[in-house]
Amino acid sequence: MSIIPSLPLPVSGSRFRAVYQLLGDEKTARDRAEDICIEETIEYPPELVPAGGIREHVFGRIEMFEPLDAQHYRATISFADELTGYEFPQLVNVLFGNISMKPGIRLIRLDLSDALLAHFKGPRFGIQGLRRLLGIPTRPLLSTATKPLGLSATQLAEMAYKLALGGIDIIKDDHGLADQPFAPFEERVARTAEAVANANARTGGHTLYMPNVTGPFESMLERIQFAKQAGAGGLMLIPAHTGLDFMRRLADDATIGLPIMSHPAFIGSYVLNPDLGVSHRVLHGQLLRLAGADLSIFPNYVGRFASYTRADCLGIAEGCNTPMGPLKAIFSAPGGGIAPESFADMLSVYGRDVAFLMSSNLHRAGPDLTATVQRFRALLEAL
Amino acid sequence: MSIIPSLPLPVSGSRFRAVYQLLGDEKTARDRAEDICIEETIEYPPELVPAGGIREHVFGRIEMFEPLDAQHYRATISFADELTGYEFPQLVNVLFGNISMKPGIRLIRLDLSDALLAHFKGPRFGIQGLRRLLGIPTRPLLSTATKPLGLSATQLAEMAYKLALGGIDIIKDDHGLADQPFAPFEERVARTAEAVANANARTGGHTLYMPNVTGPFESMLERIQFAKQAGAGGLMLIPAHTGLDFMRRLADDATIGLPIMSHPAFIGSYVLNPDLGVSHRVLHGQLLRLAGADLSIFPNYVGRFASYTRADCLGIAEGCNTPMGPLKAIFSAPGGGIAPESFADMLSVYGRDVAFLMSSNLHRAGPDLTATVQRFRALLEAL
Repeated sequence: MSIIPSLPLPVSGSRFRAVYQLLGDEKTARDRAEDICIEETIEYPPELVPAGGIREHVFGRIEMFEPLDAQHYRATISFADELTGYEFPQLVNVLFGNISMKPGIRLIRLDLSDALLAHFKGPRFGIQGLRRLLGIPTRPLLSTATKPLGLSATQLAEMAYKLALGGIDIIKDDHGLADQPFAPFEERVARTAEAVANANARTGGHTLYMPNVTGPFESMLERIQFAKQAGAGGLMLIPAHTGLDFMRRLADDATIGLPIMSHPAFIGSYVLNPDLGVSHRVLHGQLLRLAGADLSIFPNYVGRFASYTRADCLGIAEGCNTPMGPLKAIFSAPGGGIAPESFADMLSVYGRDVAFLMSSNLHRAGPDLTATVQRFRALLEAL
Repeated sequence: MSIIPSLPLPVSGSRFRAVYQLLGDEKTARDRAEDICIEETIEYPPELVPAGGIREHVFGRIEMFEPLDAQHYRATISFADELTGYEFPQLVNVLFGNISMKPGIRLIRLDLSDALLAHFKGPRFGIQGLRRLLGIPTRPLLSTATKPLGLSATQLAEMAYKLALGGIDIIKDDHGLADQPFAPFEERVARTAEAVANANARTGGHTLYMPNVTGPFESMLERIQFAKQAGAGGLMLIPAHTGLDFMRRLADDATIGLPIMSHPAFIGSYVLNPDLGVSHRVLHGQLLRLAGADLSIFPNYVGRFASYTRADCLGIAEGCNTPMGPLKAIFSAPGGGIAPESFADMLSVYGRDVAFLMSSNLHRAGPDLTATVQRFRALLEAL
């Protein structure tokens, strides 16, 4: 009685894999795995689909199903590359679209085919590219934000000058700096970029300023052009607001050609519940890397957030570095109240390809920001 | 020892409010509320901020703090309108930015000031506008999707023709239809729009076809123009992929001028954990409405998702309709395996301004889609 024809479907045969953690006993977990195969593809009564191309190629396929721990199973599910249309939003849709609304399912790993990865450029700079820009071959990076919201453009620029004078590697806008009347976007970016350039000229350093270009869609490309012309050394973006694909679009755009720092505001809801959403490794690592981030900011396991564990952060570092075809590896950028006392321990989690993001404890260390940066940087150089 | 100056800050004095549900005893919950005031604004050590403009105007302010139930408190927190820069992404940033990464906090209600709401147009059509387009003054709407993925453009268009012939109100693309080789975007949209126009010409009806225009950022505006010129009666968008602000931008654009149907793929992670994220009411109701959705799709409390409760869905209906200054009220669009047996009960939850989204059970009812639509529509007319 099906109205769906039983036709062969021309497909490449190439499939990509995703690994899901499934809550429940074997029966429950297997039901969830089978549900993923349907809900993420045909989203249609499977009993109405006859043998043939759709059943054979469009349905997701359980490639592996195994116990993970007392409460969970783990399923590896493959999907035909063609389902994505080779587009980033639809790839995410297949990986975690409708099932984001179902309980007990967490996406914990991506294993994309080379054929699919060939359609995505990923980060333009990655670790090596960014290290070349900064002239820092191996040590961990030190980055910070100008803040708080409420300061004028002049005050923020003065702060950036002092920080750059100390030799900090990256200065980003606080993620809450948009285009407020206190410090309008163009004035803030122009003054801060100029201040950082002046400090670099004085020190011979290569501090990069990465303004927050997240904004209304009508204005973002203009803001990005403005930032580039003003001398920004990179761009900060909040992909949960712009869509991850907008970051991909920026990274792909050779006329922009600046490194991208990804800020995690509004994105934590994907990771915080261990039986839902997307793992830290996938979200802050593999997915943002696929979307073109060169640095991925997230809350460190020690600090004021206290919501990400050491294991979560290890997962992020892995996701930033794990082989993904030709995609470049990227910097983990832990932040959220980290302190120099933790530098050594953090290296054991992140390795040396890490950009520590420090603001609160940098300001708490005293009013001479330049001296504090010099001191923290020396600590990193000595590690 | 603060480096932050104590200057007056020119602000309008207008503030907007957000209500948060906080997990924990009174002390824990109050700490969370105070944390929101800082983390969502200055994100800076408060002890380093002297008396003056920033402390007075930029800090969030707890306006009310009260017990909610045995495990929770509820805090109403106000923020200066200026913090948003009157831009949608930064408004969301203030409401639920960094705190998305902290446990025990859930955004459950928006109470925006009239002064702030004046900067947002919201839905272009809303309930009354869409009812006028459809020529349906009061009854609930019936909508469906063409599917499954894997059918050709011709097959999808034939399906749309049969559905429109039965007098269905809205036909959308399945949310997994992007620009796959099986049914490329332009061919699919052109054929389906033509099929629906032909059926409308035969019936004298007003079925609207709403193609999925979610795609890579380089192509979305082109796809939207193509859809409009092909005769699409609306647009379907997946805001979790495009960013909510992209929907706002489409709704604001008079040169597009089509109703917008919001699809919830990849967004469920915000609502599923009751102590995290954003409530159903805010996410699927108030926030998407502010972003310009005319119809908000979500999984119904009865159906194959079984993850949203009746109370959750009541909340969504409220969020779609609750007074928000000049913003139009919008349609709840529950889907996910709903059946005609539930129509009456669902009316008691959603009221009559609801668009039932039915596909699986419409196809399960037999191969004559036209007859099934006629039968279901008659049931709705009799309610």
